Amino acid sequence: MPVNLPPPVAADLLPVAGVSLGVTEAGVRKPGRRDLTLIELDAGTRVAGVFTRNRFCAAPVQVCQRHLADGDIRALVINTGVANAGTGEQGMADAIATCAAVAQLLGIAPDQVLPFSTGVILEPLPVARIVAGLPAAHANTGAANWFDAAHAIMTTDTVAKARSRTVTIDGATVTLTGMSKGAGMIKPNMATMLGFVATDAAIAQPLLEALVTEAADLSFNSITVDGDTSTNDSFVVMATGKAGHAEITSADSDACRALREALIGLSVELAQAIVRDGEGATKFMTVAVEGGRDRDECRKVAYAVAHSPLVKTAFFASDPNLGRILAAIGYAGIDDLDVAGLRVWLGDGKESVLVAEHGGRAASYREEAGARIMAAAEITVRIDLARGDASATVWTCDFSYDYVKINADYRS
Amino acid sequence: MPVNLPPPVAADLLPVAGVSLGVTEAGVRKPGRRDLTLIELDAGTRVAGVFTRNRFCAAPVQVCQRHLADGDIRALVINTGVANAGTGEQGMADAIATCAAVAQLLGIAPDQVLPFSTGVILEPLPVARIVAGLPAAHANTGAANWFDAAHAIMTTDTVAKARSRTVTIDGATVTLTGMSKGAGMIKPNMATMLGFVATDAAIAQPLLEALVTEAADLSFNSITVDGDTSTNDSFVVMATGKAGHAEITSADSDACRALREALIGLSVELAQAIVRDGEGATKFMTVAVEGGRDRDECRKVAYAVAHSPLVKTAFFASDPNLGRILAAIGYAGIDDLDVAGLRVWLGDGKESVLVAEHGGRAASYREEAGARIMAAAEITVRIDLARGDASATVWTCDFSYDYVKINADYRS
Repeated sequence: MPVNLPPPVAADLLPVAGVSLGVTEAGVRKPGRRDLTLIELDAGTRVAGVFTRNRFCAAPVQVCQRHLADGDIRALVINTGVANAGTGEQGMADAIATCAAVAQLLGIAPDQVLPFSTGVILEPLPVARIVAGLPAAHANTGAANWFDAAHAIMTTDTVAKARSRTVTIDGATVTLTGMSKGAGMIKPNMATMLGFVATDAAIAQPLLEALVTEAADLSFNSITVDGDTSTNDSFVVMATGKAGHAEITSADSDACRALREALIGLSVELAQAIVRDGEGATKFMTVAVEGGRDRDECRKVAYAVAHSPLVKTAFFASDPNLGRILAAIGYAGIDDLDVAGLRVWLGDGKESVLVAEHGGRAASYREEAGARIMAAAEITVRIDLARGDASATVWTCDFSYDYVKINADYRS
Repeated sequence: MPVNLPPPVAADLLPVAGVSLGVTEAGVRKPGRRDLTLIELDAGTRVAGVFTRNRFCAAPVQVCQRHLADGDIRALVINTGVANAGTGEQGMADAIATCAAVAQLLGIAPDQVLPFSTGVILEPLPVARIVAGLPAAHANTGAANWFDAAHAIMTTDTVAKARSRTVTIDGATVTLTGMSKGAGMIKPNMATMLGFVATDAAIAQPLLEALVTEAADLSFNSITVDGDTSTNDSFVVMATGKAGHAEITSADSDACRALREALIGLSVELAQAIVRDGEGATKFMTVAVEGGRDRDECRKVAYAVAHSPLVKTAFFASDPNLGRILAAIGYAGIDDLDVAGLRVWLGDGKESVLVAEHGGRAASYREEAGARIMAAAEITVRIDLARGDASATVWTCDFSYDYVKINADYRS
């Protein structure tokens, strides 16, 4: 059961001018499920992406990076079931063959296609089945198909993840619609996670690339389910430029700020959705670290807490086990951390309770107060390192019996 | 159920001349369990230790480090139930008060006592109960009490951990007897893990310190259950010098090599016992990395594999999910790792099966072969980075339903 994650409503997912989506059942790994998605983009669409830094990055990721460098992307093809990772030279050939088939179908060049795969790794990609499925996906493309596409990219997800928002830029209504998939193996540097956002905003390519990097850092690269980073993770933003406003060419403009805010907001929502649907999740945890010397050390502490299986099992048990939180802060790798100056709160805003200071439990802390906060489905841990002005926030979920069950049974 | 870990047999635990142990029920946290251990050392015993690097290191750890610097240690006092960590100034006062009470009882100075605590953290140490229990522990001290002591230092352990071995040095029979405790929260830099080894060998203090550091690196600092490092971990070696051989003063002597080999062997056995009794463990995993440029990068890769919840749940399921192993190698943090050169085997020795090479699954690999190895209770993953001559080995266990259960219920 995802934590406070209502499924998307088809009518709320706004079409984006210049973007058509089609899905089909290609039987990639199992029959009877929609497992192939085709996204077609009008000419002139600008595309930018951020990809996994895993050294075993999958063949499609390598092909995406090469094709993005050439520019002028016109289509995305996404399959589930098989990740085409750890597949060596054959995997590269398979990813390229998939692009070639899409190109032939649409009358474009193979390097105008971005391929994405998610699923089990080390298995060969069944290219023939994907190629055979493409005409059906192409035949049903439409601008209103975000709901279907969000379902077709799911793997261990229990709920589809898609949202829209609009923003007014120079008097024009600009639409952003996005979808994501992923439920485990989620961490910075992009785990088995796919995120796609399309907008009809008009924006210069270098600015789009900067925005995508920033949005990824604050969203998909700030979540973790189990600390593993995958071979296939990708976050791609497509801007068709059809909204009718003047092209955004300066970062220091109201138009850019408005688009930036909307893109980051949507990306955070899509990334948090992955954590809310984390494998076996029963709690949504926000770990907010402030008072660090730089963002990097704040992230180190936040991730040490968010990755700790002991912290995550305590949250599953609604147990305000502060000791495990403090221990995680202590081994986060800040060698000169002064634990006497550190403060830790459970909860947020008015509900927040100071739980630790002066190197131990706060004198004012009562376990009932901590237990009250831990009983909620959404819990914030706030940590003040008291040594600077930097901050960072990471989102994660708890570790439950079901996490083990899902991951022990995944391939069976 | 621990993995291939027979409980110690009282008669197999050899007394060490110059070392007496006594235990009692002090009621530290719960009544009716032996939770206080006193180890008394003859004058002239040399002692060296290695301690947690967690910034929240517990009060007793800080006191141990100070007292060891002064030398001439005559007693160790160990309580379970409460870890006296995250307890601020009061925690320091409590640890010192415990030492003072032992000192008064034995007629020694307080700084000749090393205190150890393990259990829940952030709770105040019930010093009065510990002090009240000391006379009973002292009254029953004896050289043959290793079996009782190994039981009295247990917390979430399901089985006591103690072993002896002997080695001949210059014609004298030298005895080493040790015990350890810990079952979760185990990682390098010493997790909630206590290890004690006593020997009647005679060895110069600087040599003893070097041996302890080396033995800790190859044993207690090469294991992990869940990646968390605790606030209290300590590994202490005591050498009474009663065996009757000439004092070892040179590292480059047969005597030192013999003692070194015995100490490392015993430490590895005691450290592995913690993994075999890992919380919820059903499998014992050895991750052996070779062909690295230095030991540090080999350890990085080994720990990335050993910490991955996805790898650990796959091992629980006896699933040869190589993809998860390769993904973990890929995110271990070696930026210039050439995945095409890397090779991975499952199993050890004659039984070993090459599973990955050339950036993907080995052509010769058959899943039945992998499944056969994964069915065993002890599984080796061997990884050749093919870029140097360094190596490192890490031991861990799988992640099961029971891991979550134990850690979600620990305090209730």
